[in-house]
Amino acid sequence: MDFKTRLEQYRNRINLALADLFEKNSPAILYEPMKYAVNIGGKRVRPILCEIFYRMFHGKERKVLYPALAVELLHNFTLVHDDIMDDDDLRRGNQTVHIKWDLSTGVLSGDGIVSLAYKVLIKEDFAESGSIIRVFTNGLLEVCEGQAYDKEFETRDDVSEDEYIKMIDNKTAALLAVPSAIGALCADAPSDMVGLAEKYGRALGLAFQIQDDLLDIAGDEALFGKTYGSDVAEGKKTYLSILAKKLLSPADLEIFNSVSGNSDAPREEILKVKELYEKYGIIELAEREAEKYIREAEAVIQAIPVCYDTGELKEFTEWMLNRKY
Amino acid sequence: MDFKTRLEQYRNRINLALADLFEKNSPAILYEPMKYAVNIGGKRVRPILCEIFYRMFHGKERKVLYPALAVELLHNFTLVHDDIMDDDDLRRGNQTVHIKWDLSTGVLSGDGIVSLAYKVLIKEDFAESGSIIRVFTNGLLEVCEGQAYDKEFETRDDVSEDEYIKMIDNKTAALLAVPSAIGALCADAPSDMVGLAEKYGRALGLAFQIQDDLLDIAGDEALFGKTYGSDVAEGKKTYLSILAKKLLSPADLEIFNSVSGNSDAPREEILKVKELYEKYGIIELAEREAEKYIREAEAVIQAIPVCYDTGELKEFTEWMLNRKY
Repeated sequence: MDFKTRLEQYRNRINLALADLFEKNSPAILYEPMKYAVNIGGKRVRPILCEIFYRMFHGKERKVLYPALAVELLHNFTLVHDDIMDDDDLRRGNQTVHIKWDLSTGVLSGDGIVSLAYKVLIKEDFAESGSIIRVFTNGLLEVCEGQAYDKEFETRDDVSEDEYIKMIDNKTAALLAVPSAIGALCADAPSDMVGLAEKYGRALGLAFQIQDDLLDIAGDEALFGKTYGSDVAEGKKTYLSILAKKLLSPADLEIFNSVSGNSDAPREEILKVKELYEKYGIIELAEREAEKYIREAEAVIQAIPVCYDTGELKEFTEWMLNRKY
Repeated sequence: MDFKTRLEQYRNRINLALADLFEKNSPAILYEPMKYAVNIGGKRVRPILCEIFYRMFHGKERKVLYPALAVELLHNFTLVHDDIMDDDDLRRGNQTVHIKWDLSTGVLSGDGIVSLAYKVLIKEDFAESGSIIRVFTNGLLEVCEGQAYDKEFETRDDVSEDEYIKMIDNKTAALLAVPSAIGALCADAPSDMVGLAEKYGRALGLAFQIQDDLLDIAGDEALFGKTYGSDVAEGKKTYLSILAKKLLSPADLEIFNSVSGNSDAPREEILKVKELYEKYGIIELAEREAEKYIREAEAVIQAIPVCYDTGELKEFTEWMLNRKY
């Protein structure tokens, strides 16, 4: 069976198991929006990663299922509350919870999802449960810290590359490191293997986020799901915009600032920003930074002893990072 | 040492330990509002209850401290998010987090507090940790359900007494049952004792909430901290207002409805509602309902074997419930 087919199988199993979690549906005012938020979809990358590490480290008896679902719920919790904080109306083409219902429902259903995440996480008790809960909880707090840095950066014009990397490490990479480590823990892998899994997840997350920053403007418009240049129009801090603030001449920075954050900016204005990114080699710098983390992830895979079959992890890595742009 | 002095000692120890949790304070945009929300104060009833059950069941080695702090954090988390949902500006005379800062900060610092609660809860690992995390997590989800019912009731005119009791059982009583059970679990008490502790906490919580409903209008104005009749002016669902909807004649209900929810209602209008409550025996009915749960809590105390000294628990119960009104 090829990787894409197996991926689809994993995803279907996860979606079915997630649906089962919502058999209890009263009070509807709580569980309906929770279910909606979780079912809006997404690629289920995190539970799949959990499963891949679990299998690679010879996990048995499907102990990984509930922890994997818990991580997916944790991710969905962050989306519901982030959408409130960013006042986003749409998520994957659907109305966000606080828009479809109201603010209170957004706050409360996010809280409900994180509560359910813990309930699912501890559904089955086994020897590694303590460590799993610890990794999960540290991840949750780290994501809150990452979101706080992200909010803080909105008001600052002098964010450095290092600060930006730390922020996405907390906000994005942590939520790939957590399922990687938990997959290994569920399989009762040796602690150095759990460490490698965690390290892989972080590198993958950093590479993925910088690629996402690149895709906004350097990607192929036809292939790209989001609106072309929406990060630019929203004035969002990205690895590219941070470099622009640092490298552009005063005159070019003025052009950049006139477009960045102007939600009405027409396509030709957005293209001006792309030209500036190209002129200053920013796209190349960002590609190089993403490449650095891709190499890091690959080095982790290389370091895994041959008694573990890394074939599926390699395919997953390629699938995650080999996006067209 | 008398009970009040011991209570003060417990409270000081808890406040010091809570302050220690905020040694880490970066990013400040996250930890400052978290610290503020936790330090606004409050009576620390929940961790004290945890401590009382722990000591009563012969707990040793101070294993109870972190779980007790975790329950206090859980309580504070609910306050921060409830204040957003109810759009309340003040909490114990201080600005609420989302007013002092902004909405995003309110949402995020609530999330941060619940994350920290879990981090503190699992700080020390011992035999009962699994059960403690389970009780804690079930409590968290139950509180979300209670808050959902509370929100739902705002839009309904036909809430029954039973539904109201279920709502406050979920929203208020659960957060007194959780520390009671956790205190017993930390002391490694037999499971039937944990059950009694949990039952006591629920009865206490129900009695306390109905007394709180009564205090709004039937209490001694001079002794009461909140604005006299504020539940009436806000049109809040209370045990009394639910009985009014059921028992009042159409003419009296019209008077009631003209005052309830009118935030500008002058004192004499509020007093009209009080008169209606008296005329229909509603105050007495509510007192009787509170009394029922007080008796239930006392019956639990009676059922505790004599090898455990219930003296402090009795004093605590009296202190909690013997409020003037």
